[in-house]
Amino acid sequence: MNFISNKYFVNLNREETVKYLLIEKHIKKLIDTNKIEDGEKLPSIREMAEFLNVNKITVVNAYKRLQAEGYAAQKIGSGTYAKKRDINKNFSREYSKVLKKISSDEVKNYIDFTGETPSGEFFQISFFKSVLNEVLDRDGSSALICQESLGYDGLRNSISDVFWNGNIDKDDILIVSGAQQGIDVVSKAILNTNDTVIVEKPTYSGALSVFKWRRTEIIETPIKKDGINIDNLEKILKKNKVKCFYTMSYFQNPTGISYSNEKKRQILRLADIYDFYIIEDDYLSELIYDDSIKYSSFKSLDSSDRVVYIKSFSKIFLPGIRIGYLIPPKKFKESIQNSKINTDISTSSLMQRALDLYIRKGLWRSYINDLNVVYKRRYVYMKKCIDKYLKNQVEFVEPGGGLHFYLKINQNIVIDSIELFRKSKNRRVLITPGTLFYKVPSEGKKYFKIGFSHVDEKNIESGIQILSELIIM
Amino acid sequence: MNFISNKYFVNLNREETVKYLLIEKHIKKLIDTNKIEDGEKLPSIREMAEFLNVNKITVVNAYKRLQAEGYAAQKIGSGTYAKKRDINKNFSREYSKVLKKISSDEVKNYIDFTGETPSGEFFQISFFKSVLNEVLDRDGSSALICQESLGYDGLRNSISDVFWNGNIDKDDILIVSGAQQGIDVVSKAILNTNDTVIVEKPTYSGALSVFKWRRTEIIETPIKKDGINIDNLEKILKKNKVKCFYTMSYFQNPTGISYSNEKKRQILRLADIYDFYIIEDDYLSELIYDDSIKYSSFKSLDSSDRVVYIKSFSKIFLPGIRIGYLIPPKKFKESIQNSKINTDISTSSLMQRALDLYIRKGLWRSYINDLNVVYKRRYVYMKKCIDKYLKNQVEFVEPGGGLHFYLKINQNIVIDSIELFRKSKNRRVLITPGTLFYKVPSEGKKYFKIGFSHVDEKNIESGIQILSELIIM
Repeated sequence: MNFISNKYFVNLNREETVKYLLIEKHIKKLIDTNKIEDGEKLPSIREMAEFLNVNKITVVNAYKRLQAEGYAAQKIGSGTYAKKRDINKNFSREYSKVLKKISSDEVKNYIDFTGETPSGEFFQISFFKSVLNEVLDRDGSSALICQESLGYDGLRNSISDVFWNGNIDKDDILIVSGAQQGIDVVSKAILNTNDTVIVEKPTYSGALSVFKWRRTEIIETPIKKDGINIDNLEKILKKNKVKCFYTMSYFQNPTGISYSNEKKRQILRLADIYDFYIIEDDYLSELIYDDSIKYSSFKSLDSSDRVVYIKSFSKIFLPGIRIGYLIPPKKFKESIQNSKINTDISTSSLMQRALDLYIRKGLWRSYINDLNVVYKRRYVYMKKCIDKYLKNQVEFVEPGGGLHFYLKINQNIVIDSIELFRKSKNRRVLITPGTLFYKVPSEGKKYFKIGFSHVDEKNIESGIQILSELIIM
Repeated sequence: MNFISNKYFVNLNREETVKYLLIEKHIKKLIDTNKIEDGEKLPSIREMAEFLNVNKITVVNAYKRLQAEGYAAQKIGSGTYAKKRDINKNFSREYSKVLKKISSDEVKNYIDFTGETPSGEFFQISFFKSVLNEVLDRDGSSALICQESLGYDGLRNSISDVFWNGNIDKDDILIVSGAQQGIDVVSKAILNTNDTVIVEKPTYSGALSVFKWRRTEIIETPIKKDGINIDNLEKILKKNKVKCFYTMSYFQNPTGISYSNEKKRQILRLADIYDFYIIEDDYLSELIYDDSIKYSSFKSLDSSDRVVYIKSFSKIFLPGIRIGYLIPPKKFKESIQNSKINTDISTSSLMQRALDLYIRKGLWRSYINDLNVVYKRRYVYMKKCIDKYLKNQVEFVEPGGGLHFYLKINQNIVIDSIELFRKSKNRRVLITPGTLFYKVPSEGKKYFKIGFSHVDEKNIESGIQILSELIIM
């Protein structure tokens, strides 16, 4: 029977294993179909074991798995409670609601430290307008009719020329509608239910949410001053078959950390050894204020085709334009392209053509240069204010670039960041609590993020003064 | 133990059941990870049963399930072969390749009957350009900065006013980047793996592909002259717990069929009885040439909140603009909104604002009116040509609207539609073979679709003459 290789081996001797999986699957279905409500108490382990006529340990295992997959939460001394898919639902709903209200026109004069993107105040709309008109005059209705599944040819060419010195084939570039879609499209193509994904802890909530939505197993690994800990990563890799590692290589969201090149190389080496892929979300690397930080992406160091590179133009440029691109490894190229077609066929053609011309005319470069000057000034100023007003209240790592600081409230101070959010909101100052960036939200309750892209220097100072008053109390 | 309701009951007495599931799961993983290649022969049932030390029937069941989920195909007298996810991969690849080549600028003068969307030749780009400039002057950089998760307020207002006489609350409308995204976002929100979806047979390949990608169980139900057969639908509903039914209510793609109001009401009634939802893809209902056809969507007849209504602006208007909208039932409103955010945060703001103004100025209405005049003429002409040249070769139902005809090659004629596609391509005529629209492609081999949106009257006649010559031979 030599032609039946070992790969067909399945362990069939695990009736108990299988029972708990059946129980787990059944309860998941009940939760998904709202037959068990969010927050409903599940029968106790003893009750459930008696009812189903199984060992208690079988129920324990089923409940454990439900917890691990985010379908249940245990309250010590009280029991196990059903949980719907959305992590962190209640607070994140409150947070979105507040931000939505603020962004509406009625409510202005808030000091808004929640901004994750440039504010547009330095954007020369007239340049963009003339570019748009030039495209319409040049391409006529094609600019509105064409559906290019890989994206507009010209834009892929200029990305290759301007950002990769022609070293990337334009047909290896896939245009997507922003980085969020990039993450979604990649996940759909390469991740199946229960595949294991490693993420930094803390990490971008939008990515966490995609991975949760795909029902993958998410393993968080803490991020240190120059990236995640390699020993810790290797420990995880030894124990688990990992499909991919999601990372933001520069000014990580929320910590502001950037990876050293040494660390990037080590991770790439491990990717090769343990056969996993790196999803690199390169979202803000244009904004470097500390000259000692040099830019080189995982992708640029990758010699084994292990990186799925995702670049957002929205984040740094114009959020409303919804354009980004990705460069997949050869292995996943076709499935990722199909995943994009499956998702929305193609990205708005006119916007792509306008961005292309905007880049080719050098307007992109000069806009980014302007932003660097303005935001570096704000960055330095915010750091000065934190040092001045929050010195004894918070700790932080200097990011050296990007658009925000991530602060840790000192242990001896009672207030947590959700409370701080609520109180500062009442004082018309908005912050982002750390709870949004963790699989288990409570782990972020001593952290908060403040960004300076929507706040001028005067307001940076007033806002931080107010935060200082609130943290003391 | 009265508080443990029956809902917790799980059937645990099925070791054999479970074994075949384990085997199936394992093989699926091997296929997904390319450890078993596409087309690789699986071990015979006897070999596999011996190797795993299980009953043959267990292996038979595992293989059957693999087949049902599209992971394997049986060749009579030869064995079972692994199959990768993409249905219809080889031909659909050939088809896309040809179309891609044609759409590139080098190759012109084809008679292209594959177009599914208006061609843009009647679109007044100058109107749109002035609208775009008006938006930029009015909104400045906001038009490029804003990310509205439900979509631009103004556009949702005008959709409610212009298309729903104000009867839909603007906050019940969700803007999406085209209907394909609508289908994807809805599937992500309401469909889990192995949920059952009913589709018309044949149906739109883009929807089929999303449902396959979600690994749902797809049941096809044949479409008749005024929609699917109700008895047949009810038979399916009695046997299966169905989650939703995907339908195109007007000028169904590819058959061109429209549903009678009576049939729509019957289906809505069944949705209520059997607790399933109707995903209505309303993609071309603006183009009605037969005055006896009146427009009323499933949504407009829906009194029990059973319809997820998806409207594409791209298909009828400008494909490159990538805008559509959907109206979810209350029950799924929040999860569908979250699914959209998860997918790409929001749709290009500038494009939404431009479309809004375009609609408000009445330009939309007048453009659609123009299209109706031109396309009705072509429709009538194409019908005349089919009657004249293909009378004894094909059968078809007159759609009375839309942009295409779906033709069935008569039984006694040897040629199938893939062969016809290849041969007609060499004569510079492009058609869409029916195979793309079926779960089992071969079922569509006697059908093909010809659309007239990219072909003027002279070429309609030449193209059909050529097809006639090829079908005879």
